Amino acid sequence: MYWSKYFIPTLKETPGGTEAISHQLLLRAGLVQMLTSGVYSYLPLGLRVLSNIENIIREEMNAAGANELLLPSLHPLDIWKQTGRDETLKDVMISFKDGKGRDMCLGPTHEEIITDVVRNHVQSYRQLPVTLYQIQTKFRDELRPRFGIVRACEFIMKDAYSFDRDVESMQKNYQIMYEAYQKIFKRLELDVVIVEADSGAMGGDISHEFMVPAAIGEDEVEVNGQKQVAMELGHIFQLGTKYSQSLGANFLDENGKSQPIIMGCYGIGVSRVIAAIIEVMHDENGIIWPSQVAPFQVELLPIYKSESDEAMQLARQCYDELTAAGVDVLCDDRDETAGKKFKDADLIGIPLRATFGKRNLAEGNVELKFRKSGETVMIDKSSAAAKILDVLKQGHA
Amino acid sequence: MYWSKYFIPTLKETPGGTEAISHQLLLRAGLVQMLTSGVYSYLPLGLRVLSNIENIIREEMNAAGANELLLPSLHPLDIWKQTGRDETLKDVMISFKDGKGRDMCLGPTHEEIITDVVRNHVQSYRQLPVTLYQIQTKFRDELRPRFGIVRACEFIMKDAYSFDRDVESMQKNYQIMYEAYQKIFKRLELDVVIVEADSGAMGGDISHEFMVPAAIGEDEVEVNGQKQVAMELGHIFQLGTKYSQSLGANFLDENGKSQPIIMGCYGIGVSRVIAAIIEVMHDENGIIWPSQVAPFQVELLPIYKSESDEAMQLARQCYDELTAAGVDVLCDDRDETAGKKFKDADLIGIPLRATFGKRNLAEGNVELKFRKSGETVMIDKSSAAAKILDVLKQGHA
Repeated sequence: MYWSKYFIPTLKETPGGTEAISHQLLLRAGLVQMLTSGVYSYLPLGLRVLSNIENIIREEMNAAGANELLLPSLHPLDIWKQTGRDETLKDVMISFKDGKGRDMCLGPTHEEIITDVVRNHVQSYRQLPVTLYQIQTKFRDELRPRFGIVRACEFIMKDAYSFDRDVESMQKNYQIMYEAYQKIFKRLELDVVIVEADSGAMGGDISHEFMVPAAIGEDEVEVNGQKQVAMELGHIFQLGTKYSQSLGANFLDENGKSQPIIMGCYGIGVSRVIAAIIEVMHDENGIIWPSQVAPFQVELLPIYKSESDEAMQLARQCYDELTAAGVDVLCDDRDETAGKKFKDADLIGIPLRATFGKRNLAEGNVELKFRKSGETVMIDKSSAAAKILDVLKQGHA
Repeated sequence: MYWSKYFIPTLKETPGGTEAISHQLLLRAGLVQMLTSGVYSYLPLGLRVLSNIENIIREEMNAAGANELLLPSLHPLDIWKQTGRDETLKDVMISFKDGKGRDMCLGPTHEEIITDVVRNHVQSYRQLPVTLYQIQTKFRDELRPRFGIVRACEFIMKDAYSFDRDVESMQKNYQIMYEAYQKIFKRLELDVVIVEADSGAMGGDISHEFMVPAAIGEDEVEVNGQKQVAMELGHIFQLGTKYSQSLGANFLDENGKSQPIIMGCYGIGVSRVIAAIIEVMHDENGIIWPSQVAPFQVELLPIYKSESDEAMQLARQCYDELTAAGVDVLCDDRDETAGKKFKDADLIGIPLRATFGKRNLAEGNVELKFRKSGETVMIDKSSAAAKILDVLKQGHA
């Protein structure tokens, strides 16, 4: 992508009314924009980051044998009354009467709805186990939205639900999800602390939280004997039969006897993960994206006065070669000063940067800079694309 | 994917209360499930179809130079008051007061919100033109939801918005989108009729509708001198300055003079496209998916009694080889009769089917069947995967 044709509205100044560094950098790097308190748009660069995180989660969920589906946001309040959660979740639930006079609400979570899907289609033990998940928008009426996309009224979650015939089988599925979560956070380069937790409004006995120590954390965890504040990014629950019993999701066992399905549920706050990554991975100049999350793999930065300058011509050639090789490239072709381009490059935090400058080119070189270490190396300008490909393949960036 | 590990709840009987053939087949093929009138879940097979259509649209939008972003569903009603559309769209708009007493609504469309994004970031003619789009869930309070996902309360749209400095430039962008739409519908294998249309609640002068003749159409088009009912799948508008003037989205031109940005908007009813495809492409046995939309490219259908039967062993081998080659394969490994498997295969409509049956295998053959033509050919069982790859590459399926 050429920056001049892409919508990345970076900001020089830190916007007022922001306390969290992740919130400030999300706005300054042109990743999100606030519509109203607790409600954000994902601008193109932000959506790329979001999609990369979603795809990591999707790959690990699929590898764990879960099937992806998509549930609606509009729910009849009736189904929530059947589990009593119209009351327990009353404070965060957005509800209204529609034009036909039906009591409706927006889903703050989906245990009831997925149980409805399964009770309609699963009758026999032969159809179990099954694990279903979605990556979808949730709504909560947050009285005190905070830290930008961290505590928001509209946010994106991955929620998975397992359905089993007995407790042993459910615990096996729970363990598979537990391990999938470890893989996901490893790919996101987040060091999670896993703690046994209270099941709260979800119900059930055993649950684990996946926490990342961060300055804006609203919970506490113990790391090396020290208490630290941490953000909750994932939470998994052994639900048991709370929802299947209330909603009548039963199956016939081998003996033809009707039994309630044993459930588990597994959430990750997808949009919140973005904020956590920025909290943990940034410096005074901007964001430092992990390689699998970065909106682009490499940024080309030509310093030029005219389109016919060698810097611009080589950058375009390099862009074409890398794009043809399947690399996501951002080329900052804007008519801006070198200083502004360097500042913006640090701010948006692409892991690898190739600078095409007059002095280096005269010596036959292009400068590669690693965002994380700050390290620079010179590569031969005649084989710049090939060298960059090598570096990306070796995973150095 | 192995069917036994995938959630495809096909139905033998046509569900009651359904009039449209697309609605019946969507339910029977296990693509969607109704939660309440006008509100549907996409089950795994349905989500695959939806994602394929989204990706076709995404590729053509990106090729046309549009940048993808993601706008929120929760809107402050205030911004709708600034254009007066809180009144003109009152009947379909879902609105409520949140816990903080703010008047909020759910977006039935996003002209106001995208204009807010652009007015905050575009100041100069040098930042124009820009075209932004999203693929996102919309909400409408439909008094009479109808035909399943065709007229629903919650549905998925692609909505694009162009921002230009003058009318000529806007018309150029409009033409680019017009052509992108032609490419999209060609890839979807839908013969669209394009008609000049009334701009209605959107405002602006010129607009075009992309219509597909279908039995459940609620509009009329003329095809070869005959009036036919048709479904509206796309609608593009030259908006002019209606939104930029109401919301103060201005830019400074070359002379430093403030001017309102000239807008266009471009919609496609993504979920409705699924229904249109089924309306047009089905027979008495089920759906006939176009190749780029199909949830899987090929279905393997082993008829076997025991896991050690040649049929099952060859099917698994073929599955592994095709999957390794990047093909999306569904293998019906269920413990069901051949008759049930054939019926379900026709119902879910994968373009190409390979049947591994005892009699053919004894003669060294696997039977390939094309869902669309009904044509069958025998291929050598020892090179089944390679032959299937050939057929897929030649685009015969």
